[in-house]
Amino acid sequence: MRYYKDYQLEYADCGESGQLKLPRMIDLMMGSSEGQLAPTLGGASAMKERGRGWVVTQYEFEFTSLPRAGQKVRVWTEAVGYNRFLSYRDFGIEDEAGKDLVIAHSQWVLFDLKSRKLLPSDDKIAEELGAPFLAKIPRFKKLRPKDDYKDEKVYRAYYYDLDSNHHVNNAHYLDWIVDSLPRDFVNSHEPKDLAIKFDKEIKYGDEVVCQVMQETEDSAVKTCHAITRQGELMALCEVNWQKMCFNRD
Amino acid sequence: MRYYKDYQLEYADCGESGQLKLPRMIDLMMGSSEGQLAPTLGGASAMKERGRGWVVTQYEFEFTSLPRAGQKVRVWTEAVGYNRFLSYRDFGIEDEAGKDLVIAHSQWVLFDLKSRKLLPSDDKIAEELGAPFLAKIPRFKKLRPKDDYKDEKVYRAYYYDLDSNHHVNNAHYLDWIVDSLPRDFVNSHEPKDLAIKFDKEIKYGDEVVCQVMQETEDSAVKTCHAITRQGELMALCEVNWQKMCFNRD
Repeated sequence: MRYYKDYQLEYADCGESGQLKLPRMIDLMMGSSEGQLAPTLGGASAMKERGRGWVVTQYEFEFTSLPRAGQKVRVWTEAVGYNRFLSYRDFGIEDEAGKDLVIAHSQWVLFDLKSRKLLPSDDKIAEELGAPFLAKIPRFKKLRPKDDYKDEKVYRAYYYDLDSNHHVNNAHYLDWIVDSLPRDFVNSHEPKDLAIKFDKEIKYGDEVVCQVMQETEDSAVKTCHAITRQGELMALCEVNWQKMCFNRD
Repeated sequence: MRYYKDYQLEYADCGESGQLKLPRMIDLMMGSSEGQLAPTLGGASAMKERGRGWVVTQYEFEFTSLPRAGQKVRVWTEAVGYNRFLSYRDFGIEDEAGKDLVIAHSQWVLFDLKSRKLLPSDDKIAEELGAPFLAKIPRFKKLRPKDDYKDEKVYRAYYYDLDSNHHVNNAHYLDWIVDSLPRDFVNSHEPKDLAIKFDKEIKYGDEVVCQVMQETEDSAVKTCHAITRQGELMALCEVNWQKMCFNRD
């Protein structure tokens, strides 16, 4: 069952290009899932009471076009299934005519806020959401670290990067990943698809290295990213880009 | 004339303490002023067409209590007057009962996006907003640099820190300022009042130093902040803090 939330994009949601910032896109999606989860045991306040948190392990986004400042959109989400340890949730952003602008698939785990360890899935939450038990788990893109990253920048986790799980919120990784690309490139391209896999938590004050390499084939540009902390892999990301189209509509 | 905008706080608007993040508070206020300005010559799209931008030079915030994730609020704004070069705008955030949670005063200038130079105030915009010409300008707190800052941290302006004026958005300064304080302090205190003065633009990739010192008198704690770039003053900020009250209501 899809849960819908209407929203009009603010200028603060958009960068200098005027397009929705990717971290804010994730924030909007999280707002829709919390809207759906709030009355259930999976909602933020019930989770906190029980000392639990949701942690995303992987996202896959497909973009038609990123909405712009002032645009009215509908953000939707659906709990699409679960198995013993993993929960799956889809998201989308539609324009006013109901056309998909972004579609996302995501994989989540429950974790114990104190021990920071994985918990098994909660049948009761799945039942409340009408999410089916999946005999076969959805397949996500296999991301692997590259041998030949070309550039890197160092980032530090700031106080406001932290969320109620007391670690860097997953949306902020895209602040770093996008900043690790040249400004002119980001201002002239938009993502076609983006896959990101979260391996380890990043904590307050951590310094991470965001490595990047670019693969160009004909007019297609792909960028591959790794975030590491003291050599340990924290996250991997791959983005296929297209030239930004200013007069799409 | 006050312009009102209703909003329900998302978890993404709040930090690990659950309280509205100060940069997001500014984003919400900017959303209300753009809501009021959009149909006028002072709205973002009309401004952009004419190669102009609004730049804030000073804010003063007074806090009763910061709202929390899930809370419904009304954000309001009012253009309170202008003179030859300066425009004044007040903001507020009210709870559902109409109680003021935050009040803000602000001072703005118009600037030319290309030359990055100050422009005189625009009578037509003021007229559209019903803002009076002020013979006497509102008095803002005089902020002066200190001689004895105790700590400092270095920050770099990221791609997504930029706004449609192609410089670091004023809200982001508070990301840096709050991060320059110890995490335990921020998690156990909330601002009573905050004054910030913006002197120079910070551009993409700029490295800035955020200096801080703390003055404690009885139970009152005040922090003073300076943001500099290669020794040049970019912004000054002073915050009076109170112990965070978890069961205020």
